[in-house]
Amino acid sequence: MHSKIGPAGVIIFLAAALQVLPQAAPVYKPFIEELVLANHILANEGVLDGYGHVSVRDPANPNHYFLAKAGAPALVTAADITEYDLDSKPVTNASATGYTERFIHGEIYKARPDVMAVVHCHCSEVIPFANTTVPLQPMHHMGSFLGAGVPVFEIRNAGGETDMLIRTSALGRALAQTLADKSAVLMRGHGAAIVAPSLHIVVGRSYYLNLNARLQMQAMQLGGKVSYLDAEESKKAVIDYERSWDSWKHDLLLAH
Amino acid sequence: MHSKIGPAGVIIFLAAALQVLPQAAPVYKPFIEELVLANHILANEGVLDGYGHVSVRDPANPNHYFLAKAGAPALVTAADITEYDLDSKPVTNASATGYTERFIHGEIYKARPDVMAVVHCHCSEVIPFANTTVPLQPMHHMGSFLGAGVPVFEIRNAGGETDMLIRTSALGRALAQTLADKSAVLMRGHGAAIVAPSLHIVVGRSYYLNLNARLQMQAMQLGGKVSYLDAEESKKAVIDYERSWDSWKHDLLLAH
Amino acid sequence: MHSKIGPAGVIIFLAAALQVLPQAAPVYKPFIEELVLANHILANEGVLDGYGHVSVRDPANPNHYFLAKAGAPALVTAADITEYDLDSKPVTNASATGYTERFIHGEIYKARPDVMAVVHCHCSEVIPFANTTVPLQPMHHMGSFLGAGVPVFEIRNAGGETDMLIRTSALGRALAQTLADKSAVLMRGHGAAIVAPSLHIVVGRSYYLNLNARLQMQAMQLGGKVSYLDAEESKKAVIDYERSWDSWKHDLLLAH
Amino acid sequence: MHSKIGPAGVIIFLAAALQVLPQAAPVYKPFIEELVLANHILANEGVLDGYGHVSVRDPANPNHYFLAKAGAPALVTAADITEYDLDSKPVTNASATGYTERFIHGEIYKARPDVMAVVHCHCSEVIPFANTTVPLQPMHHMGSFLGAGVPVFEIRNAGGETDMLIRTSALGRALAQTLADKSAVLMRGHGAAIVAPSLHIVVGRSYYLNLNARLQMQAMQLGGKVSYLDAEESKKAVIDYERSWDSWKHDLLLAH
Repeated sequence: MHSKIGPAGVIIFLAAALQVLPQAAPVYKPFIEELVLANHILANEGVLDGYGHVSVRDPANPNHYFLAKAGAPALVTAADITEYDLDSKPVTNASATGYTERFIHGEIYKARPDVMAVVHCHCSEVIPFANTTVPLQPMHHMGSFLGAGVPVFEIRNAGGETDMLIRTSALGRALAQTLADKSAVLMRGHGAAIVAPSLHIVVGRSYYLNLNARLQMQAMQLGGKVSYLDAEESKKAVIDYERSWDSWKHDLLLAH
Repeated sequence: MHSKIGPAGVIIFLAAALQVLPQAAPVYKPFIEELVLANHILANEGVLDGYGHVSVRDPANPNHYFLAKAGAPALVTAADITEYDLDSKPVTNASATGYTERFIHGEIYKARPDVMAVVHCHCSEVIPFANTTVPLQPMHHMGSFLGAGVPVFEIRNAGGETDMLIRTSALGRALAQTLADKSAVLMRGHGAAIVAPSLHIVVGRSYYLNLNARLQMQAMQLGGKVSYLDAEESKKAVIDYERSWDSWKHDLLLAH
Repeated sequence: MHSKIGPAGVIIFLAAALQVLPQAAPVYKPFIEELVLANHILANEGVLDGYGHVSVRDPANPNHYFLAKAGAPALVTAADITEYDLDSKPVTNASATGYTERFIHGEIYKARPDVMAVVHCHCSEVIPFANTTVPLQPMHHMGSFLGAGVPVFEIRNAGGETDMLIRTSALGRALAQTLADKSAVLMRGHGAAIVAPSLHIVVGRSYYLNLNARLQMQAMQLGGKVSYLDAEESKKAVIDYERSWDSWKHDLLLAH
Repeated sequence: MHSKIGPAGVIIFLAAALQVLPQAAPVYKPFIEELVLANHILANEGVLDGYGHVSVRDPANPNHYFLAKAGAPALVTAADITEYDLDSKPVTNASATGYTERFIHGEIYKARPDVMAVVHCHCSEVIPFANTTVPLQPMHHMGSFLGAGVPVFEIRNAGGETDMLIRTSALGRALAQTLADKSAVLMRGHGAAIVAPSLHIVVGRSYYLNLNARLQMQAMQLGGKVSYLDAEESKKAVIDYERSWDSWKHDLLLAH
């Protein structure tokens, strides 16, 4: 799915990368602010509760990613943003406590060079699907990224009896393996991880993953046969969610 | 359904038309502002997400209509409002990017001289009905316009495997044909288009289309036989939604 | 149910009545302001859409009641409050347009001397029950007033094919007859009317009628046998909703 | 479940206790303010309606607890907080009216020395489970405290035909017996009581009890077999809800 963004996405990414290569610190500022904004948007739209997180890969160094230190997404500030290597060891902010589950991010970035941003959520509409064998499928074009399939991660297979958290690189790796080349993976008894070729797209996919789950549940209750986007439609219906981003920024402004 | 508004509606329309005939620009101002307001109301009430749109036919020139340039409805300003001909070519704002799916509007205005306003939404309660064969029916008088029937548009029949969007006049025409003389058409895997003899009524119908879908789904889950407005009741129960409009304007004020 | 309020309610009512007898106008002011507040609360809590209404009987003259002139509840002001006789003819504000359906109020006050306040709503959780034969029953003590039964009014029996509105005294009378001695009557394809011995209680009952409907629908979907308050529990569990009123006033304050 | 908080929780509790031992009044201030905040958070997040309550045991005197006087949670101030003994007799604020159902708190504190905070709610998603025989089970780690089982209290067994309220020590004792060593007890036709080793945790459990109920109901409607956290996972997945607390404080700030 991620490879469907095409040349335009690649050019934007390269432009961003080139822009930050010469001198890091000052150029990164808007980049970090965008990640802070993503945290606030996801909290404000009800996608993240107090315990979710969102990261973005360093555009200039694919072996590093940015993620807030442990804390509620609604309250994240630029000072909380920490740089990690792909083993999820902090490169900056080393004294701060990191998210226990940061390995979700590090291991996915390792396994998936195309992924530039990751969300981990407990999105509430999605959990019923994570806890049943009913496959999540694309209800409309805004959820087209689901068309390639949405695997479910069973932590018992990877870690036996756990506290459900992705506390280690090994569990993160197992999750990344279940995700494979898809755009989202549900986590039984937990939530989901969503990936994308950009921060805006991962925010959009997280929002519409949750909404799509609700729509599908409602459609299934109507009693008739439910139509989903077919494989070809799913591939063709690619959304960049830029207008959603504008809209969610506006919502955030109104909330404050 | 639209022909049920009767002489009063016609007089209001003619009065509006006469008012703008002598000198265009200054008189259009409140007209444009009302369209901006409709964008904001539909976003604020959750009928439009970042990608829906609302248009209104030029009361003085039935071969033109007004629609924002591409952008999130919550953020539309008067400067974004663009005048289009019925082939959906911009008459003003020619350099701005238009909505990809503006053909929904142009082709419906061509096919339906009685239609003065059009909404295209991804209204979330409606999509379960668009993706099943369960017909949407009027649950109460506020949804009486559904009594004439709500057809479902299958884009595969008109365009084969697509990205689900109404990107061409041909697809817009096919959608208008499925709409026929009704007040709303559901779009499989996508959303809906709603039409009305005025801007306020199309906003009201869009809101209550979505609400009616939720009510019907809930009623169907109770397990008994569901009663709907019958054909005669649907014809008689005509609403102008003026008080809803006042109420939604108030909601918008509170949100800001 | 209404007769269960007991001596305390009667004393409060008499005290209010005595208070206003000597000189009408200035003493009525807080009374009218409370009715305006009830309009705003019911709109803010989502019980009334743009087309519902709430009235209160004149405590000093049981043959008169107070109701806003036609308009959205969220926008009602003290100047809109009109005094009506029980034939629903305006005693004040005679030049203003009244609610088409004011006969709901007048005819219920005629038939039910114990009723001091009436709400007419299109409360959305309730309509699924109005359109099926599944009886609404009390899910918890906050909905205890439903224990005496909730009749459903079929306007076709009273008026044949209509526009669904209670436009005449005759239809209002038929509705009052279906209500009989109960606290609420559902209206097929329309909404509900709720009555109570005070303004605060009618607001509370309207809110919890709607919530109870949602709870019952959810319980019925769980697949087991649903327990409701039995007749004796319903009679004993009498709520005055005073703390709810305080809470909803606070919500209103926060919304502004 | 409560015993799973472990040494860290005990240390925090002891620290709090030691802190208040030397001189009561000034040191209690932040403690009381936290209880006021808990009231406001639970109201703002929709866990408590106008009639719920939350208490906390005196850390310096296990035979006393703090609870607001009768009033809506959203409006509670520090002056409303009353100190009670375990027979639920007021030690301070003796002239104020107490919650009719304060015995819920007193009797649970008597029976459960490990419990430091109690919530009584009418949480709306939970009531469908309280009124059926479908057991509530942990859908995800945020609801892990449900894994030990969630008993349902039938007031008819303890008190025959009542007004559903826990008006006496005897009824409170019966409720505490049904709760036994669990973290929550549902109350048929009424709501629930939730307990925890701290104020923040009882707020978190109340919120996620309600959310878990909704998730489970949705999962059950999908038609497949639903997986829940197993006993071992439930024991291991212990949450302190500190980040939720931060997030809910932020929500409260935005609402004001």
